[in-house]
This record gives sequence, C-alpha cells and structure tokens, in this order.
Amino acid sequence: MKIVIAPDSFKGSLNAIEVSKSIEKGIKKADPEANIVLIPMADGGEGTMETLVASTNGYQKQVTVTGPLGAKVEASYGVLGDSETCVIEMASASGLHLIDSRELNPFKTTTYGVGELIKTALDDGFRKFVIGLGGSATNDGGAGMLQALGMKLLDVNGSEVAHGGGELINIKEVDLSSFDSRIKDSVFIIASDVQNPMIGPQGASHVFGPQKGATSTMVRLLDEGMKNWADQIEKVTDVSLHDRPGAGAAGGIGGAFQAFFPSETRRGIDIVIEYTKLEEVIIDADFVITGEGKIDDQTVFGKTPMGVAQIAQKQNVPTIILAGTVGKGIEQLYQYGVIAVFSIINRPLTLNEAIQGAQELLENTAEQITRLLMKHGK
Amino acid sequence: MKIVIAPDSFKGSLNAIEVSKSIEKGIKKADPEANIVLIPMADGGEGTMETLVASTNGYQKQVTVTGPLGAKVEASYGVLGDSETCVIEMASASGLHLIDSRELNPFKTTTYGVGELIKTALDDGFRKFVIGLGGSATNDGGAGMLQALGMKLLDVNGSEVAHGGGELINIKEVDLSSFDSRIKDSVFIIASDVQNPMIGPQGASHVFGPQKGATSTMVRLLDEGMKNWADQIEKVTDVSLHDRPGAGAAGGIGGAFQAFFPSETRRGIDIVIEYTKLEEVIIDADFVITGEGKIDDQTVFGKTPMGVAQIAQKQNVPTIILAGTVGKGIEQLYQYGVIAVFSIINRPLTLNEAIQGAQELLENTAEQITRLLMKHGK
Repeated sequence: MKIVIAPDSFKGSLNAIEVSKSIEKGIKKADPEANIVLIPMADGGEGTMETLVASTNGYQKQVTVTGPLGAKVEASYGVLGDSETCVIEMASASGLHLIDSRELNPFKTTTYGVGELIKTALDDGFRKFVIGLGGSATNDGGAGMLQALGMKLLDVNGSEVAHGGGELINIKEVDLSSFDSRIKDSVFIIASDVQNPMIGPQGASHVFGPQKGATSTMVRLLDEGMKNWADQIEKVTDVSLHDRPGAGAAGGIGGAFQAFFPSETRRGIDIVIEYTKLEEVIIDADFVITGEGKIDDQTVFGKTPMGVAQIAQKQNVPTIILAGTVGKGIEQLYQYGVIAVFSIINRPLTLNEAIQGAQELLENTAEQITRLLMKHGK
Repeated sequence: MKIVIAPDSFKGSLNAIEVSKSIEKGIKKADPEANIVLIPMADGGEGTMETLVASTNGYQKQVTVTGPLGAKVEASYGVLGDSETCVIEMASASGLHLIDSRELNPFKTTTYGVGELIKTALDDGFRKFVIGLGGSATNDGGAGMLQALGMKLLDVNGSEVAHGGGELINIKEVDLSSFDSRIKDSVFIIASDVQNPMIGPQGASHVFGPQKGATSTMVRLLDEGMKNWADQIEKVTDVSLHDRPGAGAAGGIGGAFQAFFPSETRRGIDIVIEYTKLEEVIIDADFVITGEGKIDDQTVFGKTPMGVAQIAQKQNVPTIILAGTVGKGIEQLYQYGVIAVFSIINRPLTLNEAIQGAQELLENTAEQITRLLMKHGK
C-alpha cells in the first residue's frame, strides 16, 4: 500500500513537517510495510518557505534586514532542491509576528526588508523567485521594497520620501533609473489568494488595514495615499492598479509586483503542489492523506486539503482528510475525491489539550484509518 | 455490504437503541444500499431489559411494587420476543435512581419490590427469567425479595423481621414452608459480572455499601448482619454463601438466588448476545459496529464491545468500535478481531457538548467510516 502524506500545518500546534511525521508514525504502527511518502504542504501563507525547503530537500539562508519598524531583524530566504528557485515569505522581513501588537502602525511599517531580501538573493545569483505574500504588517504598496531595490520615490521637493504607508501621499515622482536591472531578467511567482484591488472600499487599506493597526481615520488617509501611489505608478508604467484584482494583496505589495516585476500571481497551494511535484508522486499511490487544523465550508476555497484533493482526483487517487476541528459542510468535498474526513480528537477536551496532544492524536487516528484501509471485510 | 450495528448505550447520553439508529443513519448516508441490522446491546446493567425487549420485538408490563424505602414505585418487567422469557432488572424496583441521594440508607432499603415483580410474573405464567443485577440501592442479602415470595424470616421471638439490611442481624430462623412453590419449577438466569463473596473485606457491605450510603460504622454492622444471614441460610440449605463468588452481587441478592432459586449466573453481555441471537445475525456480515460511551483498558474485562468483538471474531467478521472517549490500551482489543476504534468527537468540546451532540457525532463518524470501507484504493 502506497500512501502519500501531504498535510498543511495544524496552526498554533504543529508545522506541516511535524504533522506529516505524526501521521507516518501512525500508519507504520498499523502497516510496517507501507510505502509512505511525506510531502508536507502549505497554502502560500506562513510556513510555505520552510515547507517547500523541507519537501524539496533545499536549504535556508539567513539575512539581516530592516524590519517593519526600522529595527534590524533576522529574516531568511529558502532555496529549493533544484538549487535555482529562491522562496521568500514577505512576513519573514515585514511580518506582523515581528512587532508587538501595541506597536502596529501601518503609517510607519515598511516592506523595505523584503526588498533587501530580494536584493541579497539577486546578489547570490538567483533569478527565479517564489514570493509568499500574507502575514504582512505593512500597507505601503510595496514602496519600501522598491526603494531597497533602487527605485527613487520623490516628494514635491525632489527628496526621497520616508518609509511607511503614511508617506505614499507625498510621492510626486517615481524615478526608475536606478531600479535594480536584474529584476527584469528574473521571474517572480507570487503566491497569493487575495483578489482585492489596491484602493477603494474593497482595497488594501479598507479591508486589511484594521488588522494591521489602522483606525478608521487612518484607513481613510492610507487609502488616499494608496490612490496617489497608484496614480504615480500609472504615470510611469501605464499600468492602472487602482481596481486591478490582487493589487491590494499584502498592503498593496501585490500591485508593486504586478507593475514593476516580471511576475505571475497564482494560488499558493498550486505553487506548492507544483514545486513539491505532488502530482507525480501521487500517480501510483493508493491513498493520499492530507489535513489542517480546521476543516469546514471555507476549505473549498483555496486551502491545502482542497488543492491536494483536486490533484489526487486527477490521478484517481482517493483523499482522506484529518483535522482537529471538523466543521459544517464537509460533504462539499466529496465531489473532489475526498472519501473521508476524520477529526483527530479522541475525547471531550479543550483546544489547548488538543494542541498539546496533537502529535499523539494524529498518530492514533492515522493508525486506526490505516487499519480500516487494510481490512476490507471478508 | 452487510453491517450489523450492536452497540451499548452511551451512558448519560443515548440508550443503545438511539445509538444504533444514529449509526444506521450515518451508514445510510454513505451507502443507501447497505444491508443494515440493528441489534442494540447491553452488558446486564441498567438498560438491559429495555434493550433486550427492543432487540427481540418483545413488550414491557408495568407493575406497582414496593420501592426501596417502602413507598410504592412503578416498576416493569419485559417479555422477550419468544413470549416466554421474562426479563427483570432489579434496579427497576430497588434501584439507586428511585431515591434521592440524601435518603440512601442500606439499613432500610429493601429488595421486597423485586420479589413482588417476580411474583407478578409468576402469576402471569412465566417460568423463565433473566434477572439483571446492578444499580441496586440495597444491602439486604435479598431478604426482602424472599419475604415477598412467601419466605418467613423470624426473629428470636418468632416474629417476622422488618425490611432492610439493618434487620439481617435479627434473623434467627428461616421458614421455607410458604416459599412460592413455583420458583422450583422455574429457571433463573442471573446477569452479573460481580465475583464478590457475601461477607468479609471483599464482600457486599464493604465493597458496595459505601456507594449505597453506608458510613464505615454502618458497613461493619451490615457485614455482621450479612454474616448472620449467611449462617441462617446455610442452616436450611447447606449452601455456604460466606465466601462464594458472586454471592455478594447487588447487596447480596446474588447469594439469595444461588441458595434458593434454580439459577445460573452468567456474564451480562453473554446473556444479551444469546437472547438477541447476535451470533446468527453476524455470520454473513461484512462488519460489526459496536461501541459505548468510553473505551479503554477496562473494556477488555466484560463490557459490551469486547463481548461483541469476541462473537464476531468467532465468525471471522471484523469489529469496529465507536466511543465518545477513546482511552489508553485499546491495542489490547486488536487480538479479539477489533480492526479499528474511533472517537465520535469532531472538535475540542466539553463533555456536556459531546453528550448533547452525540446523535449527530455518531451519525457523522459512521458515515465517514462507511465511506472508507466502501473505497479500497485503486
């Protein structure tokens, strides 16, 4: 029996690699002879770089960069097993997790560190990038990143504007002359599931600003700044980001990639599936086991188990999903080749107990499922 | 696919019939064509009569009898589908659930109502009995039951002693002359898993007295009374109940059956398995699904899922167990043909939420398991 284990992380509890190993342990208890392949998954959000590096036997490199509020932080980029693809999570340099929640201030937070990470990778010879958006503390439209890569964003006096979303309103000229020329020779695959435009009520500032610390007054000012920034970008590129889907991703950095980088935006899970070569590995599998911390209606829309199931279904391989919480609406997953969805919880317990015991719970559930798969009646 | 559903109750939540129906509903969602047979189970404890009546398409008869503290209570006996076997749970007439916990007093509580139930059934023509011990509020050595059936228990003055365990010490003579003569023409199958003797540190009073309201002083006095009772019984029957295994069951009523009734004591689950004809039904099944509220090490010793698994194993039919709580040590069950044990819990929740949601949780888990059983890989 060949079983492919391709789960996401169980958020707040185990990363995808730990989840995979726990499931493997349970399967082996039931069937020591099983042919098991571990392909930890991610959906493009936090943990994607680490997971892709692990799944492809790549490596990570640490780089000191400018953090979201200016202080230096230790960020890192990953290099995949192909030795040529560089994976960067913007949250590594500009993430919410890097600052105290009381310091959240999208007027000040900058993507400058993301630009530094890219610059370092370019210096290291990489020209092929996967960029994971998500988890950012910023609303600067990617302006900081562009400045770190040599672009000059000038105010009415011809001086460079400072960092942060609060400065976008002051940009009167975009000077591309010193913008890193290696960018145009590179390819950027942007992992993002966000379809929001750059400005307006569905734009970056209105929709994501509040979770980054913006009050309603700040949201209005940030959106005005973002509109000015989109105007200035349109002047130099002829690209209108204002209403463009995806331009509002991660505080508008999505738009910066769309306007200035040879880039393609794709669903995070699809990128992960491609780079882990999941489909090839699945071809001769008997079952795929995937999972995430919580599974419900929402899972149909772009999350890992759904993506894995779709690829498995293409190869006629049934998918089994494990989750901590199994919510409503899972029957929608059946049409995508999901044959069963099990919770790993084994008794009445608290969320904290579930989180603490997740490894053993996963192992036990995987064991029981494997025992069932091995025994097909008389 | 033929599936036999043979679970116990989920204590405090659903009776065995409700559990069976929830599982059936889940299976049907996954496989509307499944051939499903419901055989609700019990282990000889509370719910056994109701379950056996339901499983065999029998009926119940209500009888007003003397309750454990003298007040009248509505008890009932069951008649199985064979129309000749009468099932009596002693708890129906003398159970803990009939009195407020503040009124518990094994000096006073009596099995008189059990005798009245038996007498009514004898009057109704029945000669074949299954008696479920367990759940009793009494420690009277079955004396009350015997009095209700005509036996005279006399004190030093030749007067009948009153009811309750506190009176056993006063019995100086047992007069069998008026004891219901129909008893010797009957058969009594006693359902009991208890091996305790009638007296001493492992006896009825010491081991079960406290849970029936006895203080340590009361326990000592009850044990002295029980010893006198065993002495008196030995005088008239030559049967020594003092150290006899099972004589201490249900406050010593087990001993009364052993000494005065044509009786045989068997494991509750074995009796239920026999009368429900579980083994015959299982023969051509693909799977048996059983379960109970909690499953762990202790389950190996006499409980329903273990009994069901053993019968299924005899017929080479694999058993799947569902439970609210899956504890430690379940791997011991594998040697008895149990192929998998699943908890029905689907998220972190409280015991109360599990109890409230048990029907839906059972249904969902049964559905997922059936989906897995139907799909055996490529």
